[in-house]
Amino acid sequence: MKLPEKTVERLSRYRRLLLNYQFLEKPFIYSRDLARMLKINPVHVRRDLMLLGVSGSHSKGYDVQQLIREISLKLECTTKKSACIVGFSHTGRAVLELYAEGGTPINITAIFDVSTKSINKEFFGVSCYSMENLVEMIAEKEITLVILTNVDEEMGGIKDLLIACGIKGIMNLTSQTIEVPPQIHLEEYDLKTSLIKLTYFSEA
Amino acid sequence: MKLPEKTVERLSRYRRLLLNYQFLEKPFIYSRDLARMLKINPVHVRRDLMLLGVSGSHSKGYDVQQLIREISLKLECTTKKSACIVGFSHTGRAVLELYAEGGTPINITAIFDVSTKSINKEFFGVSCYSMENLVEMIAEKEITLVILTNVDEEMGGIKDLLIACGIKGIMNLTSQTIEVPPQIHLEEYDLKTSLIKLTYFSEA
Repeated sequence: MKLPEKTVERLSRYRRLLLNYQFLEKPFIYSRDLARMLKINPVHVRRDLMLLGVSGSHSKGYDVQQLIREISLKLECTTKKSACIVGFSHTGRAVLELYAEGGTPINITAIFDVSTKSINKEFFGVSCYSMENLVEMIAEKEITLVILTNVDEEMGGIKDLLIACGIKGIMNLTSQTIEVPPQIHLEEYDLKTSLIKLTYFSEA
Repeated sequence: MKLPEKTVERLSRYRRLLLNYQFLEKPFIYSRDLARMLKINPVHVRRDLMLLGVSGSHSKGYDVQQLIREISLKLECTTKKSACIVGFSHTGRAVLELYAEGGTPINITAIFDVSTKSINKEFFGVSCYSMENLVEMIAEKEITLVILTNVDEEMGGIKDLLIACGIKGIMNLTSQTIEVPPQIHLEEYDLKTSLIKLTYFSEA
């Protein structure tokens, strides 16, 4: 059984925060403190941790090391899925850098771009191919996940190609919206929306 | 009166989608179609558009051009706020590229970095300064918004400095969490959480 989307998102946020405390000696944390630090309703935190299957102690709260371990077990597959970056923009390089640091749940096995500056070169050990090789390489490297970072002009065409390739998930980091059929999971992040929220809610 | 955070986020998403249709002749759209395309509850869409103060026609739906115009009026200040990028990583370059394309609600007036490769150079017309000039330049350029893109090592120190400078909003695009006092608005995006959701919800 899959956990709810919001729970997965929050579990990842808990771990991100808890990693700051893991080097303290025998660290413990109360759900209300976790909730306060992340500005989340404490009820959600307690429910998420119940779904995770861990319980805290009344006197000390939750064992931080155990929480980190259980969240990692729950959220990450033992075999990393094969992924590719399509459109090697600065955003694509940022994704690759994070991947190279380790700790991401994917295995980036190919980059596809249209620029001759990148094609046939390696970045952090990952080869960059021409878009023309997309279909063939996706099959060869058993790629199931695609991170779109810069294909604004030909979004429609690329998307249809990816669907035909049997891709299971797309992460859209470009500035354009895409629609995908229900069998494909879509993650989206729009930097511009974040900038708008930043300006709208920051008091002058 | 400020709109609710989720409404602002959705309004920005509506506009992002509607911009694809603006060049059709006299385009109209029904709220239920907008909801379906963005996988949002139609009730939310109708309430958001009511808060925006626009009404649709029963026979044709909402005027796309009018929606785009009203959303822009509501979300964007007439004078753009002054912002800086701190830590000039690939993510920082991606933000700057988006800014250079136009259409972002901010005015990026400075970049701060520790690398001598970037300091004293210009990128898209924006000067990059040493971190040592941070306090002085924030005052000089009346910067109120900060986009953190790579300051992992010294996050605590930088944050305290920014608070002391009277910064109103921070966008945290680094891989570390930060806590800010209530008078500062914080936007956060964690790429790693998105990658986890992508792998977790994409069926093998």
